[in-house]
Amino acid sequence: MADLPFDTSDERLAAAAWSRLVEPGDPAAVGLVAHLGGVEALDWLLLAADGGVRTPPPWEAAVARWAPRLENLDVRRELEVLDRLGGHLLVPGDARWPAALDDLEDPPFALWVRGGSAAPLGGTLAVSVVGSRAATSYGQRVAAELAVGLAESGATVVSGGAYGIDAAAHRGTLTVSGTTTAILAGGVDRLYPAGNTALLEAIVATGAVVSEVPPGCAPSRSRFLARNRLIAALGAGTVVVEAAWRSGALSTAGHAAKLCRPVGAVPGPVTSMASAGCHRLMREQGAVCVTDAAEVLELVAPVGEHLTSDPPVQPGLLDGLDVTASRVLDALPVRGSAPVANLARTAGLPVDQVRAALGHLELAGRARRTGSTWTRSS
Amino acid sequence: MADLPFDTSDERLAAAAWSRLVEPGDPAAVGLVAHLGGVEALDWLLLAADGGVRTPPPWEAAVARWAPRLENLDVRRELEVLDRLGGHLLVPGDARWPAALDDLEDPPFALWVRGGSAAPLGGTLAVSVVGSRAATSYGQRVAAELAVGLAESGATVVSGGAYGIDAAAHRGTLTVSGTTTAILAGGVDRLYPAGNTALLEAIVATGAVVSEVPPGCAPSRSRFLARNRLIAALGAGTVVVEAAWRSGALSTAGHAAKLCRPVGAVPGPVTSMASAGCHRLMREQGAVCVTDAAEVLELVAPVGEHLTSDPPVQPGLLDGLDVTASRVLDALPVRGSAPVANLARTAGLPVDQVRAALGHLELAGRARRTGSTWTRSS
Repeated sequence: MADLPFDTSDERLAAAAWSRLVEPGDPAAVGLVAHLGGVEALDWLLLAADGGVRTPPPWEAAVARWAPRLENLDVRRELEVLDRLGGHLLVPGDARWPAALDDLEDPPFALWVRGGSAAPLGGTLAVSVVGSRAATSYGQRVAAELAVGLAESGATVVSGGAYGIDAAAHRGTLTVSGTTTAILAGGVDRLYPAGNTALLEAIVATGAVVSEVPPGCAPSRSRFLARNRLIAALGAGTVVVEAAWRSGALSTAGHAAKLCRPVGAVPGPVTSMASAGCHRLMREQGAVCVTDAAEVLELVAPVGEHLTSDPPVQPGLLDGLDVTASRVLDALPVRGSAPVANLARTAGLPVDQVRAALGHLELAGRARRTGSTWTRSS
Repeated sequence: MADLPFDTSDERLAAAAWSRLVEPGDPAAVGLVAHLGGVEALDWLLLAADGGVRTPPPWEAAVARWAPRLENLDVRRELEVLDRLGGHLLVPGDARWPAALDDLEDPPFALWVRGGSAAPLGGTLAVSVVGSRAATSYGQRVAAELAVGLAESGATVVSGGAYGIDAAAHRGTLTVSGTTTAILAGGVDRLYPAGNTALLEAIVATGAVVSEVPPGCAPSRSRFLARNRLIAALGAGTVVVEAAWRSGALSTAGHAAKLCRPVGAVPGPVTSMASAGCHRLMREQGAVCVTDAAEVLELVAPVGEHLTSDPPVQPGLLDGLDVTASRVLDALPVRGSAPVANLARTAGLPVDQVRAALGHLELAGRARRTGSTWTRSS
C-alpha cells in the first residue's frame, strides 16, 4: 500500500478520511480514533494494511474491512465537491461542532455541511421531529403545525429530509422563516429523495443539510439506520408524529431514549395504522403524549422554562356558585314553583341554608320569589 | 317528629331510608351509619331531630340537613315502585352486593337495581368505559369496538347510560349479548336521558340498571358527580374513550385513580377537542394509552393473564438476511455490474466477507454473477 496522496498529518483531512473509510458507527474505528486521534489512527491503518504491524485477530478483521477503501482514497476530491457546493467540513473541536453529538457512544468523525445558517445545527434549542414517510394528511398537518410553533419559539427543527412527516416538519419551519437542519443518510451532493430536491435546496439556503458521509456516498439502508442516531442526538428531545408499528422513526426514538433525551409521541386515531407506532411508544417506552408545540417545549426545556397553561374555558352556568347554591338551583323547579321546605327536602339541605342560598340566587337573577314559593329564572 | 310509618328496626328498610334521606356521599351520614349501623343511626336521627339528644355543632348541622326529608319519609313506597318495575334492593352484606364498592370512602347505603342478569354488577371481571356525551363518530365507533372485545372476553361493561360514549359502550356490549351495567344518577324508575329509554330498557332485560338513590329522585348535577365514583369503583379499571378538556369522564377517571384502579385513555386526533381530555389524562395523570380491547384487558387483568402480542408483519425484502449480506445487497448495482473489490469498497466490508455473502445472495436468487462481476437480481 503506497502513501495516500494527501497530507495525512492534517487533522481535518484525517477526520474526513475516516468518515470515508468506515461505515457510520463502526465501533472499532470509533475506538481507535478516540484512542489515537485521527491522524495517528490513519498512520496505524496504513501500516497495518501493509502488514507492517502485528494486529491481534479482532483488529485484523477491522483492517480487512477498512483496507479496500484505502485504494484510491483522496478526500481532497470530496472536499472539492463540497466546496463547489458552498459547503464546509466540521470536525470535533470546531466552534460550530455540535457538542450534543459527543453524547453518542459512536459520534461521527466529521460532518459534511451545506447551508448558510450560522444557527447551531442542534443542541438545547433544537427539537427533532420525525415520522413516517407514508404519512397521512393528518400527520403532515400536525408535523407542520408543531414545526411552526417550535420555530416561532426560536427552536431549530431537526429532521431527516424524507417524504411525509420529515418534509412537513422542514416545510413548516421554512414557512415561518425558522431554522431547520436535515440530516441525510447519503452524501450532501445528492439531495435525496429526488422529490424533495427543491425543499432540501431551500433548507440549504437558510438552514443546513448535513451528512456524516462524504459526497458521492449513496444513502444505503444501514446508513439510514445509523443516521437516525444523529437526528436523536442533535435534538434536545425527539417527537414522533406518525409511525407505523415498525418504523424507522421508532429507531430514532430509541436512540433518543438511550441518550436520555425526552421522547414525545403525537397521538392519532386508533383506527389509523400510521399512528400505531406512536401509541406503542407511549405504552411501551414511556414516551410522553404531546399534542402541540407548547407541550413539546415543556418536554425538552429545562424545568419551569416552558409551562403550558390550561386553555381558557367559558364559565358554565353554575361556575362561581358554591356547592350549596348549586344544589338549591338544581332543586328549583323550571316550571311551577315550590316553598322553601320542599326545596330543602329536594336539595337535602337545612331550611336556613336554602333560604340563604335563595337570597344569593335571587340577587344573581337566577331565582324568583312569588309569594312564599320560589321558581327558577334565567 | 312522630315515628316513621315503617319498621325502622328492619336493616334493609333502614338502608333504603338512608339512601333517601341524604345526598350521595354525605360524609357525616356515611360515618354515622358505619359507626352505629343503619338501624341505630336512624333511631339516633329521629331522637336528634326531636331535640331528644344533645348534638355537638357539626352534628347539629348534619341533622338540620337531613331532618327535612324525615317528613313524609316512607321507603315502602319507593320499594313498591321498584318491585312493580321488577327490580330489587341490594344492601351491604347481600350475596350480590359488589365488594368492589367497599373500597370507596363513601360507599352507597343501598343499590336500587333493575335487571334480569345474575352476573356481577362489577368487580374483577368488569371494565368501566366512559366518555363524552358530545362524542364524535370516531369515539362512538371505538367505544363500541372496545365494548365488543371486552364482552367477548367475558367482562361486564360498566357505564353511565348517557348519550355518546356511554351509549356506544352499552350498545356494543348488547350486540354480542354481553353483560352491561348502567349506573344512573337519578332513580331507576325514570330512565334518563329520555332518548336512551329503549337502550336502557334493553339493558334492564339482560344486564342491570342501577342507582344509589330511590325511585322518584331526579338526576341532579351533584348526583351525576357522585354517581361517577360508583362507575369507577365497579370496574376493575376505567377507560376514557373521548373527553373534552373539562369533562365528567375525567372525574370518573379521577375516582378510579384514587381507588388505585388502573386508568386507560384512548388517543385520538390532536385536532379533535373531543380527545383533549384523554390526552390530558395521559400527560398529567399517568393514564395508559389503550387502543383496543386486548390492551384494556392487559391493563385491568392480573399480571400476565392477558398479554397483548405484536401484530403479525409481512417480512420485508431484507428480513432474514444478516447485516453483512444486507450491506452487500445494498452495494450491488441495480443496473450494470461490479467486481468484488468495488463491492467491498462500497459496502465497507472485507473482500472475503463480500465473496461469502455474494454466494448466499446468489443461492437466494438475489445476486447474479456475470464473468468476474456481480449484479442484483430480483
